[in-house]
Amino acid sequence: MKITAAYTDLYQLSMAQVYFKTKPDGRAVFDYYYRSNPFDGGYAIFTGLENVLEILENLKFAESDLNFLKQHGFESAFLDYLKTFRFNGNIRSSREGDVVFPNRPILQVEANIIEAQIIETMLLNLLNFQTLIATKANRIRHSAKNATLLDMGLRRAHATGGYYASRAAIIGGFDGTSNVKAAEDFNISASGTMAHSFIQSYGDELQAFRDFAKVRPKNCVLLIDTYNTLRSGLQNAITVAKEMEEAGEQLLGVRLDSGDLAYLAKQTRKILDEANLGYVKIVASNQLDEYVIKSLKEQGAPIDIYGVGTNLVTGKPDAALGGVYKLSEFNGTPRIKLSENIIKVSLPYKKQVYRILDKNGMFYGADAVAMFTEGAVDYMEHPFDATKNMSLKGFDYEAVLQDVMTEGKKVSPSRTVTEIANYSKSRLEKLPEEYKRFQNPHIYKIGLSAQLKQERDKLVLKHKF
Amino acid sequence: MKITAAYTDLYQLSMAQVYFKTKPDGRAVFDYYYRSNPFDGGYAIFTGLENVLEILENLKFAESDLNFLKQHGFESAFLDYLKTFRFNGNIRSSREGDVVFPNRPILQVEANIIEAQIIETMLLNLLNFQTLIATKANRIRHSAKNATLLDMGLRRAHATGGYYASRAAIIGGFDGTSNVKAAEDFNISASGTMAHSFIQSYGDELQAFRDFAKVRPKNCVLLIDTYNTLRSGLQNAITVAKEMEEAGEQLLGVRLDSGDLAYLAKQTRKILDEANLGYVKIVASNQLDEYVIKSLKEQGAPIDIYGVGTNLVTGKPDAALGGVYKLSEFNGTPRIKLSENIIKVSLPYKKQVYRILDKNGMFYGADAVAMFTEGAVDYMEHPFDATKNMSLKGFDYEAVLQDVMTEGKKVSPSRTVTEIANYSKSRLEKLPEEYKRFQNPHIYKIGLSAQLKQERDKLVLKHKF
Repeated sequence: MKITAAYTDLYQLSMAQVYFKTKPDGRAVFDYYYRSNPFDGGYAIFTGLENVLEILENLKFAESDLNFLKQHGFESAFLDYLKTFRFNGNIRSSREGDVVFPNRPILQVEANIIEAQIIETMLLNLLNFQTLIATKANRIRHSAKNATLLDMGLRRAHATGGYYASRAAIIGGFDGTSNVKAAEDFNISASGTMAHSFIQSYGDELQAFRDFAKVRPKNCVLLIDTYNTLRSGLQNAITVAKEMEEAGEQLLGVRLDSGDLAYLAKQTRKILDEANLGYVKIVASNQLDEYVIKSLKEQGAPIDIYGVGTNLVTGKPDAALGGVYKLSEFNGTPRIKLSENIIKVSLPYKKQVYRILDKNGMFYGADAVAMFTEGAVDYMEHPFDATKNMSLKGFDYEAVLQDVMTEGKKVSPSRTVTEIANYSKSRLEKLPEEYKRFQNPHIYKIGLSAQLKQERDKLVLKHKF
Repeated sequence: MKITAAYTDLYQLSMAQVYFKTKPDGRAVFDYYYRSNPFDGGYAIFTGLENVLEILENLKFAESDLNFLKQHGFESAFLDYLKTFRFNGNIRSSREGDVVFPNRPILQVEANIIEAQIIETMLLNLLNFQTLIATKANRIRHSAKNATLLDMGLRRAHATGGYYASRAAIIGGFDGTSNVKAAEDFNISASGTMAHSFIQSYGDELQAFRDFAKVRPKNCVLLIDTYNTLRSGLQNAITVAKEMEEAGEQLLGVRLDSGDLAYLAKQTRKILDEANLGYVKIVASNQLDEYVIKSLKEQGAPIDIYGVGTNLVTGKPDAALGGVYKLSEFNGTPRIKLSENIIKVSLPYKKQVYRILDKNGMFYGADAVAMFTEGAVDYMEHPFDATKNMSLKGFDYEAVLQDVMTEGKKVSPSRTVTEIANYSKSRLEKLPEEYKRFQNPHIYKIGLSAQLKQERDKLVLKHKF
């Protein structure tokens, strides 16, 4: 499946046809944001932007798409329009890899409303998922400290979504992936040695290890739990490690994939060290996530490399990030979406987000949202609680939303996955630790400028029944 | 991203290179199965087979894949082999859409071990995910009874995995999707009318409805909760429905997307009926799943059409099906994978699965697994509990695993998604209700032939430490 402009929900095209007839020149501003942090955490890692921009630059309807739509009752004048459809809008966005927070624009689309609607589904689909997975990966990185982290999840991923999961894992802080296609396309490190089936096919574990080490001596990791980890697999691995030494090679590691990983890792380390194989690393896998790795670390399990699969690539337990795309301005006038739930009321107007910095350049723990026309603000109010506000005088700040696409052309520099991962790491270093803990993380403040809050409240009253 | 043979884990290629050098003619049998039913349910709907077969028939390495592998230390003789790599093996499988159960082969691959390993990741990736989603969809269908079910999940799906989610939803019993690309490629029904942004862009809800109904009068569904469901949206929808009647058209429905759906649906039905609009349907959406829909039904909410998104396409709360692919025979000799957990011990030998039928052709609640060479059996034993066994004398049966691919060529008839969905429905009708309930469903029995059990136990003892 190739992503074309038909990678969308049908209602976008239904609405588009109506706009095409009634207000073909309507100009819209939409905000992309989410309402609560994934995994009950304190932040998210914004991911997927480069993919979205690349797709947008080349987005069009295929001939087969138009034929399909013709059969679904779309009029020929509209189909003619779709034939030459391109995205010609502007996008201002947080930088990919940045640390982001709920209920403030992460990305803003300003375009003809037909174009802005048609791209909505693709944009949400790619940003929601990759942001979820990069955030999960980053939590796992937080637990694993300096250990090597490898994504091994493709077999349990949501079909071809696994391709993007592997990309997002690297941005969140993983070191490599088992996913060959993703490694190839995104220029990330690929790794992987053997499955249980390899040892089973030999029947003889020692012979299997020997053949493998002979043919693939570089980065060789032997899987030692097929029959019995300590009494069979580890002993055979030691034999082969010694034979490799004689051949001038070094065994990279042994992998544990079942049993009590803390106990087995400690025993394995001890036995390897006693055999003068202190350089042989211990790799562990099997249903790992940030909590299991944290526990293994706390127990002092001497694991050097963690392979993480299902829980990473499916973003368990959340499985989805509920990012939304809300109209905030149409033909220059502000728009709002009401809700019985006050925190679901959207913010009107084209806006800018200011990240407040302390004297050392660290994040102070507050983003201020203001009308775009206001410029930077020195005071912000809680979005709903009238008793809470905060002076921003004397603080430094960054304007978060920057031009990344202008009239359909990408204007931000293209960045590799490694560059984005490094940027993300540098941004996380500016976020104080208390926002990163798993239990009740400190809440990052999102405030509104006095003017934005006033204008929002006016619109709420106007539409209230 | 196009699926090529590099849509795999690197360890498959590492192992393949060793096989290429040490036993290039190794012939393997692998079983695909899962160990416990998704969603704590009583069954799963096997889905994804047609996609896998289609991919396998055309699977090869792209030039760019080979370049990538060259940089990763694979030898040139092996790369030359990969250049002409094709899958030439045999596959025997349950039919797509069939009701399947844990711990028995669902699909069996018999091929050169290099080919069998290279395809493993793609096969698991597509079958695990689609089986998960079709099963979720089927549970939602079970709750929704005869109501119309629409998949609206693409924006929250795992990137392009959403394409396959929409396909699987139909096989599990959904009626249509919002996903244009999936509808086009899989020839399934597409639907969708308007988002809140449409009404917001007008500001004036009545005018928005009027314009929409004028341009798109067929299958018109008006979204009525943008400002106030009963006091604004519904009143305006009634006005437009009356205007449509005058123009010789009929409003299809109104959609509720927030608030208490049971209360709002009842009020909406009452007010519509009082306005002589009994034909206008009620569509509901907003974080639905099988439990919410069951509750709405129990409360008597008069909802005709349910739109389901996130919980469907992400397979929440499971998010993954842990299907595995285990070597059961190599060069004619049986293979086993031990585990500290007895239920994770694999079944050796090439096998057949027999589904036991009662006198009325209904599923009796038992599948028997036997060695392929045995033929049908009239007695089965519990896989682990020596005190449990069952006579199958006098029962009818079906041989479940049938040839679908022979020497790399598809030999089963190609079936459309609709045909597969119909087949699945007919199979579910043969499964007694007690296996379908959500709470503690009846456990479908999986037994082994006496010979298979004996041979497995012999191999366990042989490898035990």
